[in-house]
Amino acid sequence: MIQTVGYAASSSSSDLLPFAFERNAAGPFEVEIAVTHCGVCHSDIHQARNEWYNTLYPCVPGHEIVGRVTRTGSQVSRHAVGDTVGVGCMIESCGHCQPCTHGEQNYCSGPNSWLATYNGPVIPAVKARDRQNTYGRENTFGGYSSTLVVHEAFVLKIPAALAPELAAPILCAGVTTYAPLKHWGVKAGDQVGIVGFGGLGDMAAKIARAMGAEVTLFTSTPEKLRAAARMEAHAVLESDRATMQSLAGRFDFMLSTIPQAHDVNPFIDLLKRDATLVVVGALDRLPPVNNQALAFGRKSVAGSMIGNLAETQEVLDFCAKHAIGPQIEIIPMQQINEAFAKVVLGDVRFRFVIDMKSLAEPEPGR
Amino acid sequence: MIQTVGYAASSSSSDLLPFAFERNAAGPFEVEIAVTHCGVCHSDIHQARNEWYNTLYPCVPGHEIVGRVTRTGSQVSRHAVGDTVGVGCMIESCGHCQPCTHGEQNYCSGPNSWLATYNGPVIPAVKARDRQNTYGRENTFGGYSSTLVVHEAFVLKIPAALAPELAAPILCAGVTTYAPLKHWGVKAGDQVGIVGFGGLGDMAAKIARAMGAEVTLFTSTPEKLRAAARMEAHAVLESDRATMQSLAGRFDFMLSTIPQAHDVNPFIDLLKRDATLVVVGALDRLPPVNNQALAFGRKSVAGSMIGNLAETQEVLDFCAKHAIGPQIEIIPMQQINEAFAKVVLGDVRFRFVIDMKSLAEPEPGR
Repeated sequence: MIQTVGYAASSSSSDLLPFAFERNAAGPFEVEIAVTHCGVCHSDIHQARNEWYNTLYPCVPGHEIVGRVTRTGSQVSRHAVGDTVGVGCMIESCGHCQPCTHGEQNYCSGPNSWLATYNGPVIPAVKARDRQNTYGRENTFGGYSSTLVVHEAFVLKIPAALAPELAAPILCAGVTTYAPLKHWGVKAGDQVGIVGFGGLGDMAAKIARAMGAEVTLFTSTPEKLRAAARMEAHAVLESDRATMQSLAGRFDFMLSTIPQAHDVNPFIDLLKRDATLVVVGALDRLPPVNNQALAFGRKSVAGSMIGNLAETQEVLDFCAKHAIGPQIEIIPMQQINEAFAKVVLGDVRFRFVIDMKSLAEPEPGR
Repeated sequence: MIQTVGYAASSSSSDLLPFAFERNAAGPFEVEIAVTHCGVCHSDIHQARNEWYNTLYPCVPGHEIVGRVTRTGSQVSRHAVGDTVGVGCMIESCGHCQPCTHGEQNYCSGPNSWLATYNGPVIPAVKARDRQNTYGRENTFGGYSSTLVVHEAFVLKIPAALAPELAAPILCAGVTTYAPLKHWGVKAGDQVGIVGFGGLGDMAAKIARAMGAEVTLFTSTPEKLRAAARMEAHAVLESDRATMQSLAGRFDFMLSTIPQAHDVNPFIDLLKRDATLVVVGALDRLPPVNNQALAFGRKSVAGSMIGNLAETQEVLDFCAKHAIGPQIEIIPMQQINEAFAKVVLGDVRFRFVIDMKSLAEPEPGR
């Protein structure tokens, strides 16, 4: 067993606090990773606060994880001790279903779907066919911790050209936006609209630009307009009705990264005929969609869920090649609760990344 | 001028009553048509009753029109006197926009969009850019009338193998379902779900079967299950939860023909990964869509609006070739108000078609 320290929420209303636990030592196909950095995703907050009504406690969030391999199981061939590696939202999938055998682990249709880096299987035993838990693990503890043990197939290689603290958010924010941009065929010259300018919006805009698209960011925060200009994207305040109207029918593709339910109708109007708005930020019920607006342009509203393993490696390599990465603020683990509060307020430019060295530091006042 | 008799609603609460009006004689590119049959579409009721809040009165509905050419303008080359022809939902479009120049008249992005067979331009002057009316016609009168005068390009050829009364509903119910089935690439061996089993559902199921798909119809009306069996389609009661659950993830494509806002979430669950539910019946705000269900299968909800002229001719020829057509009940014009009431109750198998000969008969009791 590996003595591990992390930060956990013990209930939906509790702060994250230090939490000691054990992880199983690496099996034959697993690698042990000393976590060096972990990004702070809005999902971490949703999960810690039970906003999806499925949280298992204690809850150790974190699925934008970078670290160094410290030990490998006897059969591990892809990674070696000392490698800088990454772990995203998934740490296992059934491996046998149609999506898994087609490399789409993120759409695993096994009895428990994929095993999430934190909070256990996407479909827990209580909701699974025959109430089974094929992973044998009810809960899982994420990257807000000193150590991780993961099957080598779910461990990504961090390109040397990417600083580890910049690589971390690419493992969720990056791939969650890259995968739909690629799947829906965004190409050079396209007009792409990115709705919401937080951690996902920041990565989405940079990736779409690197694909050759002309990017327009939509934000509700006037202070973010300048940041958009710095990344050579157009930026529009959602409340600016005249500009919104002038953009009707402009976009070949739109991606909404807003992390909660929101009205998508104003953005449907901005799509070209036959174009799609993909909502990746919200795992909620979207307010009523005007089907007349969809029908009169044969438009679509779609969802997309993170990305598969190949896409995750691809986006890491893509970011390294194009020298793009998230804009981040590095924090020590001890500031996580303040960071959560700021993320909820949108008061972060644009991703907090925890420097895990801080875990070894003494707790102030404890 | 051509003396015309029709049936019109004079307000949202009035019955349709006989209405005499004049049509302009055919211009150089127009044909005059003696209407022989007109289908009764749920849209006729929505429009007559102002359920889309845009009705111009008097309102003469009818956009599933078949008749005989009685006169042609001097420049008409496509149709000849005596031809059996059809007119669907559109009688003109701008002709210059990107969709029009690509043959997608039904998505005309001109200042007033397309000119509807009844109720005038889709975008009326009061809502148009610069408040213009490029068609010079505020209102238009549909096929619940003795005569129609239409530009030859918007007049379809009725194949000899199709009885005129069966051809009529194909001009709206047929093409509205054929166009998305074709656009989303339904092919032999696909599992196709058709939601709602009225006039559109009847045509959708027959067309999808003729394309080689295996069809399942979803209805809320137990009495319709037998009708589905007759057309060699599976049929499921929407309220049958066990069957609904057993169909999770089954369908390559689903088409909802329900003519008003309805919960699409139960049907999203039945889609395969990457599959699309297209809503053609409802021009309303759809109740909240569960984006989690979309995201976990990269699924889409889309809209589609009738079909273009080429698709309308195609579906007529397709139905003739495959010897399929709507199941209809023929009524005289004088029974239109009873027919409307029955359509609203779903008490029709499956399309009323007005025999326009009846227009010449004396009004009972008048």
